[in-house]
Amino acid sequence: MARIPATTSRVVIESESPRIDGGRFAVKSIVGEPVAVEADVFCDGHDAVAAVLRYRKTGSRRWSETRMAPIGNDRWMADFTPEELGVWQFEIEGWADRFATWLDGLDKKVAAGIDVTVDLLIGAALVSAASIRARGKPGRTLRKLATTLADTNLELTDRLEGAFSAELRTSMEDYPDRSAATRSERRYEVVVDRERAEFSTWYELFPRSWAVDPGKHGTFADVTKQLGYVADMGFDVLYLPPIHPIGVTDRKGANNGLRAGPDDPGVPWAIGSDKGGHTAINPDLGTIEDFRVLRDAASERGLEIALDVAFQCSPDHPWIKEHPEWFRSRPDGSVQYAENPPKKYQDTYPLDFETSDPRGLWLALKGVFDHWIGEGIRIFRVDNPHTKGFPFWEWVIAEIRREHPDVILLAEAFTRPKVMYRLAKVGFTQSYTYFAWRNTRHELVEYMTELDRLHDFIRPSFWPNTPDILTQQLQTGGRPMFMARYVLAATLSSNCGIYGPAFELMDHIPLTPGSEEYRDSEKYQIRTWDLDSANSLAPLITQVNKARHDHRALQRNANLTFHPADNDKIICYSKRAVGDVVLVVVSLDPDHVQSAWVDLDANAIGVDPNHQFQVHDLLTDRRYVWEGSRNFVQLDPGGIPAHVFAVRRRVRSEESFDSFL
Amino acid sequence: MARIPATTSRVVIESESPRIDGGRFAVKSIVGEPVAVEADVFCDGHDAVAAVLRYRKTGSRRWSETRMAPIGNDRWMADFTPEELGVWQFEIEGWADRFATWLDGLDKKVAAGIDVTVDLLIGAALVSAASIRARGKPGRTLRKLATTLADTNLELTDRLEGAFSAELRTSMEDYPDRSAATRSERRYEVVVDRERAEFSTWYELFPRSWAVDPGKHGTFADVTKQLGYVADMGFDVLYLPPIHPIGVTDRKGANNGLRAGPDDPGVPWAIGSDKGGHTAINPDLGTIEDFRVLRDAASERGLEIALDVAFQCSPDHPWIKEHPEWFRSRPDGSVQYAENPPKKYQDTYPLDFETSDPRGLWLALKGVFDHWIGEGIRIFRVDNPHTKGFPFWEWVIAEIRREHPDVILLAEAFTRPKVMYRLAKVGFTQSYTYFAWRNTRHELVEYMTELDRLHDFIRPSFWPNTPDILTQQLQTGGRPMFMARYVLAATLSSNCGIYGPAFELMDHIPLTPGSEEYRDSEKYQIRTWDLDSANSLAPLITQVNKARHDHRALQRNANLTFHPADNDKIICYSKRAVGDVVLVVVSLDPDHVQSAWVDLDANAIGVDPNHQFQVHDLLTDRRYVWEGSRNFVQLDPGGIPAHVFAVRRRVRSEESFDSFL
Repeated sequence: MARIPATTSRVVIESESPRIDGGRFAVKSIVGEPVAVEADVFCDGHDAVAAVLRYRKTGSRRWSETRMAPIGNDRWMADFTPEELGVWQFEIEGWADRFATWLDGLDKKVAAGIDVTVDLLIGAALVSAASIRARGKPGRTLRKLATTLADTNLELTDRLEGAFSAELRTSMEDYPDRSAATRSERRYEVVVDRERAEFSTWYELFPRSWAVDPGKHGTFADVTKQLGYVADMGFDVLYLPPIHPIGVTDRKGANNGLRAGPDDPGVPWAIGSDKGGHTAINPDLGTIEDFRVLRDAASERGLEIALDVAFQCSPDHPWIKEHPEWFRSRPDGSVQYAENPPKKYQDTYPLDFETSDPRGLWLALKGVFDHWIGEGIRIFRVDNPHTKGFPFWEWVIAEIRREHPDVILLAEAFTRPKVMYRLAKVGFTQSYTYFAWRNTRHELVEYMTELDRLHDFIRPSFWPNTPDILTQQLQTGGRPMFMARYVLAATLSSNCGIYGPAFELMDHIPLTPGSEEYRDSEKYQIRTWDLDSANSLAPLITQVNKARHDHRALQRNANLTFHPADNDKIICYSKRAVGDVVLVVVSLDPDHVQSAWVDLDANAIGVDPNHQFQVHDLLTDRRYVWEGSRNFVQLDPGGIPAHVFAVRRRVRSEESFDSFL
Repeated sequence: MARIPATTSRVVIESESPRIDGGRFAVKSIVGEPVAVEADVFCDGHDAVAAVLRYRKTGSRRWSETRMAPIGNDRWMADFTPEELGVWQFEIEGWADRFATWLDGLDKKVAAGIDVTVDLLIGAALVSAASIRARGKPGRTLRKLATTLADTNLELTDRLEGAFSAELRTSMEDYPDRSAATRSERRYEVVVDRERAEFSTWYELFPRSWAVDPGKHGTFADVTKQLGYVADMGFDVLYLPPIHPIGVTDRKGANNGLRAGPDDPGVPWAIGSDKGGHTAINPDLGTIEDFRVLRDAASERGLEIALDVAFQCSPDHPWIKEHPEWFRSRPDGSVQYAENPPKKYQDTYPLDFETSDPRGLWLALKGVFDHWIGEGIRIFRVDNPHTKGFPFWEWVIAEIRREHPDVILLAEAFTRPKVMYRLAKVGFTQSYTYFAWRNTRHELVEYMTELDRLHDFIRPSFWPNTPDILTQQLQTGGRPMFMARYVLAATLSSNCGIYGPAFELMDHIPLTPGSEEYRDSEKYQIRTWDLDSANSLAPLITQVNKARHDHRALQRNANLTFHPADNDKIICYSKRAVGDVVLVVVSLDPDHVQSAWVDLDANAIGVDPNHQFQVHDLLTDRRYVWEGSRNFVQLDPGGIPAHVFAVRRRVRSEESFDSFL
């Protein structure tokens, strides 16, 4: 015999957004920022529907509710603003609004001169039922209104006045009949991060190259002394490659040499020696006390330390002996080293995520995070997360965030797009990107379009260089290319970073022609940098970072509009936030002066195309008055090959720069 | 303490397609047609993965499996062909393929001249493990191969030969290690219909107007006598408006008059009288025996009867008294009639899907389907399904199809798009569309693009007219417009239909100017049609239907390509199926001769743009030799304002029409 389903509610709720993979993964947002939620809500027939957005912090018993509004084509919208870090949930509830349907019908019938005697009685019954739901004072109000509707002793006009009164409408909205309401078929999650998850400016340095006394191994104390250099440029995250003891067995020498000399410091990512593993500190850098001093001094200057988490071991790591089951063994009894055939990396042993002891391994790895969280660290740059199992990341990130929702994890996965996106879905806060290899205007526009589409779960971080990536463009493009690439990174993405001082000192010599490795890379040896060099790009970087700091439009993503320019060596785009528009023009040609007519989308930059407006170059402090949507730009590689304009529309009619806001 | 999840499989399966709303609803297909399934399958690291598509008829215990193949960017594909009607399921299983990873590494190491002694032992262990999974003869083969790999007494070349042998690769593919495989996070469903769900040509007629003796009330017997007229035009579905007793109370007169005269037959959709309700037959049409005779005679001529299911009641329907709880009552004790304020339909009582007895109501409605299924009917046109609850449809269609998977239901919902799409999602086999109101080329292209996007769950049916829809175009466009609209309907959509003889006899007089209602509509009165009229479009319709019958390209959807024409009064498109291409050119201007250069997408029509090809007009039987992608067309409203070309590419070099296939 056919069984009737328990839920026969007439209202449909579908196509909720934002959601990732149908709700399988959480979307990302930041605290204090509204989350705009939409859904299709409708029912059969011609009845009016009503809907609320319900939301709460996960774990809270109480849902908050806010009324949704129709935006056309059966789509409804509302937003909520999470005011605390952590995981939030939302769902939608909709119901057929019999009162609204009735009121609409009454209105039409009255207009058509149709007798509404019976209709008023139907309405009175609806209002009476609401009065029972309401109780107390609102209940009494509704009861009185129901009586008015039903009272045949009253004049019709008085009864209709009651029916169409704002008081009745409001009261009925407050006490709707939701007994046959429909809920979303699943709850959706929003991971709510702190502001820095969305807006951060990273500086990566190898402390060992920062000795105040040249020729020595740099230490945390040396970095502490020179924090002003980094902070004054306007960075807010100071990222250190692994600070742990470095393996001795099969240690690499300069320029990835197979044999290390006695003074070679080794690769920081070859983690572990008899001095300890992932929770120990390389004695050459100092002590845990020195590290804490650095951390606190950085914090005072607005710099947050980010540590590198590289889950792999040198042959000397304590885990090799303590937990051989966490590594894969070879038939000859040796431990399986890392390889990407035909390449071998004998100085690195990967952890085996198919170990017979996943519980032990996973807990130990979480323990590494816990240790450094205990040392006050809240930002981690995770090395090669794509070579560890996705279920591990999904688990460990959820666990960490449950206890410390202020933790930020940057995924360093330069691999196939779907693998990178999955890492973002399972919880990484930020993600390295292909930005370094997107050079032409077409490539940049296409890539930004793709990233914008994925904005709900991936927060891109744009790096023009890293210790592993010295692009052909930087090798050959000279100073103008370094400038252009930093302006692009810092204005296309709200999260960006550089590996310095190699970047601002324009280190551009590759290991070999065609390679993207640096010659004399700090990965293998200590370098000495002339931070006071007159050629340094530090002043420009400082200006760009100040623009980022001052302009909210540059602190958000998915707010980008490209504007056509009639020269494809010139890229033009704007970013917009509430009360703020920044317009950027960059020349992609490091060799020649380039000019273009740009056709501005007036709506995107918030100006009246028929009036003058001011563009204020934040890099040079020069101001220009532009008019209409078509304007001329010229960029000289001999100067700064970019404009970063604050756009100010005219607010008074007087001819004065002050009149632009 | 942190709990480790039970499933820690490394392989990810996501973005499976086809799926509707993340798998919430079934996709639609037809029996014997391959279902192409895709998914992203990948794992962390650099390991090779393998995947199978698993499928079965729902209820079957045994899954079939077919190996998926990579198609780039971590996407995998396979297809399966359901050979039975009903609901099928599919899911995907993927695993890290350690053997393939090993073999690939071995290949690269050998090429680089690296010692592979230990690698061969690793491979031998993998093969040995497979031999245990395999058992029997394949197990012995694998054991022998494992021994070869491991045997240090053999020459290295012999061992490598074994490693790279096709025998080993095939055997390992047959016995993979799937112990840590991942399955799709949910199972996906495919509703498998019969061919007619995808390809059908409907003819709607009011039997009461088909009296062989003019002036009488037509009967089933009259229709039986004239079946040849319909069948000879090439239709395969004969759809009858409701055949049940018509209410007397508040019966409508001619042209929707409020008072019916004594001879007015009433509206067939005002169902129910003292003669019975939805399972009874209007005695004026004949008996159930007459109906069975008609059904069988139609069947012999290749015509399948479709009945109208209109779940609403006249005031005289037996259910009003038997089940007052299925209707909404008004405060004055009357039953709530249908209304769409300020319009009232006092001759029709809607069923109340918020009844206190949903079980009783739902079962009774299902009983209506069951009754007519019992009478051999398998196609139903459902009137206004959008005014009944979606949960009811989802339930009743699943129930019907579980017992009778050959049932086809056409949803007659002319309402908001999301409501129409939801009805298709919850199970309607076919859907009426907005085709009648899509007139300009831009409108048609846009609409077809939208429908193609929804192809996995909505099967559009294109009707140029219905008893409710006499468009402005047909009212004013005359014969050329009638011709153009039928060619468009019949070649844009694999499912189409007309309301005749009004259509082929070009009835085009509206009730009032601006109305889409017919004057003297058959909905309210009996009409007399001159089926032998010399002006009839029957010959053209016959030709078009023959083209549909002969050309598989016209029997499928989502196979459409539009081709640019430099005159927007001319629309050009092609449809393609295996071994068949049809190219259609239609003039949208009923008043003037129109010509255009059309730029054919050679790839879409499967011809070599540098060689001649033949286009054979299936409406006129004329053949043209075209060359290249740019060709000239001219269409005269005085003739047939359309070409329906079979495209034949040259297969021999001789100059002969026979050389085009």
